[in-house]
Amino acid sequence: MIESARPALLLDLDGTLVDSVYQHVVAWREALERAGIDLSIWKIHRRVGMSGGLFVTALRSEIGRDLTSVQEESIRRDHDLAFQRLSRDVRPLPGALELLERLSAEGTLWAIATSGTMATARASLEQLRIPAGVPVITHDQVAFAKPNPDLFLAAAAELKVSIADAIVVGDSTWDILAARRAQALGVGLLSGGYGRAELETAGAFRVYDDPADLLGHLYELGIRGGRRP
Amino acid sequence: MIESARPALLLDLDGTLVDSVYQHVVAWREALERAGIDLSIWKIHRRVGMSGGLFVTALRSEIGRDLTSVQEESIRRDHDLAFQRLSRDVRPLPGALELLERLSAEGTLWAIATSGTMATARASLEQLRIPAGVPVITHDQVAFAKPNPDLFLAAAAELKVSIADAIVVGDSTWDILAARRAQALGVGLLSGGYGRAELETAGAFRVYDDPADLLGHLYELGIRGGRRP
Repeated sequence: MIESARPALLLDLDGTLVDSVYQHVVAWREALERAGIDLSIWKIHRRVGMSGGLFVTALRSEIGRDLTSVQEESIRRDHDLAFQRLSRDVRPLPGALELLERLSAEGTLWAIATSGTMATARASLEQLRIPAGVPVITHDQVAFAKPNPDLFLAAAAELKVSIADAIVVGDSTWDILAARRAQALGVGLLSGGYGRAELETAGAFRVYDDPADLLGHLYELGIRGGRRP
Repeated sequence: MIESARPALLLDLDGTLVDSVYQHVVAWREALERAGIDLSIWKIHRRVGMSGGLFVTALRSEIGRDLTSVQEESIRRDHDLAFQRLSRDVRPLPGALELLERLSAEGTLWAIATSGTMATARASLEQLRIPAGVPVITHDQVAFAKPNPDLFLAAAAELKVSIADAIVVGDSTWDILAARRAQALGVGLLSGGYGRAELETAGAFRVYDDPADLLGHLYELGIRGGRRP
């Protein structure tokens, strides 16, 4: 008898589980301003969640000139420092803790996959009280972060599930693009500040407000709950 | 011979001419946190630009309890103080100064209409170097700010143009709703961080990136340029 595997959830971190996107935006703004680069804040917002390397490429295209690798490194370091200062304010999004608890309690496999580094993500991860054994994939573990599919592929591999049985949950178009490239189902959350249509147009199967809203609609994703055999 | 009037532009301020929406968001977040209210930042973002009074009503609905008028006043004051501190960073959006100069040079009438108070708006207005004679309508001059149409109606009245000949330009759904209620044409800008479809669905006739993009496409709005007779 054919019996497909139970879906696993591969979850983005910033804007998906923790309310940290706007602090990242402000941190990038500060770092760019210090480097003498004047980029509108909404354009920064729409580029948060992509890999830092790609962000710098996007930046080059916006400002119309090349940055030296010293400048790039200094912008990235200034962002990380500013974010660490601002991230004292960062809280889990509504329903995030409850969602993760429910998934674990029901035996649905899940993992975290973030374009950030462990250094930047640590404070947020601590707030989420990730149980031992849950894979946390950061940029440190792959050569290319989102929208490359590598972070999600690595998370599925650690869970020992096929990526085709995985559901990627993220707040940005970069998550959804990475999900499509990985051949996983993409689900969007509005809690990072993107509009619903931006995520739907990128290919999200469903868009929910935040983790609490997703938790209330897990059945819409075919997540049946109940312990694994 | 029938000859319709030339369109006048009624421009929102925050997110439309100056890059200040994210600072307002962070300022509201600080003020709410100080009041012990935990509201996700993206939800604050989507409510910036509406009148402060309506914002507090929205807040009541989100947190599920009433605020005393003392609490409301204290949240509003904390926001204003935090914004004044953060708004040292605020800059005109790309093309804002050029757009206003072009409108003036070509004799197209324009005015500014903002849900903020003059106390909050002053720093931004100074950066825009508004010429004498250009109406600036703030919440101080009307009983109800956006999405009530009053600010735009007052701006049209000061310009002595019919509201039906006015084009409202704003970055938020509150501007577009106010434009519809006023029977003016609404045009959206992405520079406040809303998604294109949010503004189009609200009824925007066109959506441009920012003032520079609008400046390059004024002809699409039927603005012909040339001095007034």
